Amino acid sequence: MAIITLTTDFGTRDGYVGALKGVITRTEGYLDVRVFDIAHDIPPGDIAHAAWVVATACREFPANTIHVVVVDPGVGGARRGVVVQHDRSRYVGPDNGVFHYLGERTAYAIENPRVMAQSVSATFHGRDVFAPVATFLARDGQAGELGPLVELVGRLPWGPRPAGEGRVVHVDHFGNLISDLPANEAGDAVAIAGQRLPLVRTYEDVASGQLLAYIGSAGTVEVAVRDGRADRALDVQRGTRIVPVAAGDAYR
Amino acid sequence: MAIITLTTDFGTRDGYVGALKGVITRTEGYLDVRVFDIAHDIPPGDIAHAAWVVATACREFPANTIHVVVVDPGVGGARRGVVVQHDRSRYVGPDNGVFHYLGERTAYAIENPRVMAQSVSATFHGRDVFAPVATFLARDGQAGELGPLVELVGRLPWGPRPAGEGRVVHVDHFGNLISDLPANEAGDAVAIAGQRLPLVRTYEDVASGQLLAYIGSAGTVEVAVRDGRADRALDVQRGTRIVPVAAGDAYR
Amino acid sequence: MAIITLTTDFGTRDGYVGALKGVITRTEGYLDVRVFDIAHDIPPGDIAHAAWVVATACREFPANTIHVVVVDPGVGGARRGVVVQHDRSRYVGPDNGVFHYLGERTAYAIENPRVMAQSVSATFHGRDVFAPVATFLARDGQAGELGPLVELVGRLPWGPRPAGEGRVVHVDHFGNLISDLPANEAGDAVAIAGQRLPLVRTYEDVASGQLLAYIGSAGTVEVAVRDGRADRALDVQRGTRIVPVAAGDAYR
Repeated sequence: MAIITLTTDFGTRDGYVGALKGVITRTEGYLDVRVFDIAHDIPPGDIAHAAWVVATACREFPANTIHVVVVDPGVGGARRGVVVQHDRSRYVGPDNGVFHYLGERTAYAIENPRVMAQSVSATFHGRDVFAPVATFLARDGQAGELGPLVELVGRLPWGPRPAGEGRVVHVDHFGNLISDLPANEAGDAVAIAGQRLPLVRTYEDVASGQLLAYIGSAGTVEVAVRDGRADRALDVQRGTRIVPVAAGDAYR
Repeated sequence: MAIITLTTDFGTRDGYVGALKGVITRTEGYLDVRVFDIAHDIPPGDIAHAAWVVATACREFPANTIHVVVVDPGVGGARRGVVVQHDRSRYVGPDNGVFHYLGERTAYAIENPRVMAQSVSATFHGRDVFAPVATFLARDGQAGELGPLVELVGRLPWGPRPAGEGRVVHVDHFGNLISDLPANEAGDAVAIAGQRLPLVRTYEDVASGQLLAYIGSAGTVEVAVRDGRADRALDVQRGTRIVPVAAGDAYR
Repeated sequence: MAIITLTTDFGTRDGYVGALKGVITRTEGYLDVRVFDIAHDIPPGDIAHAAWVVATACREFPANTIHVVVVDPGVGGARRGVVVQHDRSRYVGPDNGVFHYLGERTAYAIENPRVMAQSVSATFHGRDVFAPVATFLARDGQAGELGPLVELVGRLPWGPRPAGEGRVVHVDHFGNLISDLPANEAGDAVAIAGQRLPLVRTYEDVASGQLLAYIGSAGTVEVAVRDGRADRALDVQRGTRIVPVAAGDAYR
């Protein structure tokens, strides 16, 4: 039994997601493949958003899962299609930064035309390259047959995290600001966008409408507004700094 | 074969829905589990909206289905996680009102840490508590092993329906206003927000752009605008009264 | 093993999609049915949009797939429910134009009450008619048992394509304008809305923010803005003409 997940910016009003599923079911043959939608409303072309979704959702799946990630504004251009092996799972998609957060990894370029559609469109490699590659892997195809070992070159705009501080790396559906400042460096309070916030446990620890900081489900500091949206309250964007401060300096 | 459904306010642009699916597939082992998305774009934190979705969608599934419902603005706080047994199905989620419309039922608190993630986050019980509980139930785990029998305390803002009238309890994707006034009390016409509307059968019974009232798919009175949105035309909200009137009083 | 796909305008915040899935899983019995979401955020009542989704997604699925299409603003009225046989697959839905792009085909009216819900609502034939019909077909039920052979009458607002030109027939999630002008008639450049655009291969062939024309994944001419939205840049709508022009007349 093989598991294939789908993460795209295709939205849920066109035929693009369905085309991926059609290709996967058409080529599976006798094989028992399960297809799971992870997210299809990633903002169009937003590679950093996709990278965070991959980092937080895909790791929950069992070993041998095949994750197809198609947020691919450079489709048909210079960026390379790759299969990334990480933590006993395979990731298929463009080398444009969507695999930024995966740690130790091995990557193969996708070059073998025999695993692609007979006619490859210039603008829909999800259907014509990545879905066929996923089914190839699901049938025990080896990544090494697709092309040579390569180094990933795709990067997100922010570099390595500076010591002692974090950055907002994701703004979620609820308007929560998710940083890369790990719990063990957060201390008792943080400062962001001129606000000083003590770390609390959960939303109900503050009054409705109030800002709060807490350790989120990814193990890093998040900032939210209870029953509201922190992205609007603070008007910050990805990349904004968040720094630990002494708890005494934070308002209560 | 076990069936698990997912109903959340997580949206479809983050990794949260994928994390639930990952946990379920990871822990299923040899078990044949099917996962069905019911709805993930429930307005954030909108418990009453979720309750109506649960009431209208979950009842269509076969006996023994396990319904996971995560609309949980109080996550990590005082509200209790529960498993509700109703009509030969199990419902897993917070006791905050999302199970309001289920009739006769038995509920168990979720307290047993052995069925939760090893480390339970304060803000993502969907991943760390409810999904693991669902897989526990899918493996024939008994709800009584999770915790004690409890009475549900979660309620929606509206109380029992007053005799002889209804309230708008849901506004759907099309802007249709769905009430709890049952067909057998509706008579020939209803009044809402100063409008008197005869009951017709379906949209085509009025001209495009016109308001209409009819018996909806839940067996209660609905108000719509043909090819339009009744929520905008009438500017009413949930809780608005809808009352039967004599047909002669309603315009045609 | 049977495959059923779902294409609707139900959105992803109500119980309607879940109800379809519930009916399908409830009635499958011993049968191994796989259910795939194609798209649920088709604009409400937008038949032409649905028709394009059907044309581009459903054809990717294997033979014998059953495609349920519920974009049905005339539900309960005069339009007929049908099963369409095309290219070894079955399509179930209203005869209102959603099957416009399917080529050679045979259609049967859905009239047999024994394959419908016991009580058929006037406004939710997806749940009460089309999903039950899909499961009937999945159990090797024959379309001819549903009702008589009929001619489809549903049409889209645009007639046959005039010789030598195309029309915008779909605007996708990315704001790309998709025409019905086939690649082999496109020549080297096209004109649309007063713009003359040379045909390029893919997005990266122009600078960010620039308009481009190219052969899209459906094999027809598309117009896009790299990293932007062509629908906003050009302010055109479906039905807008797009015509081949001499390449020398197009700017570079």
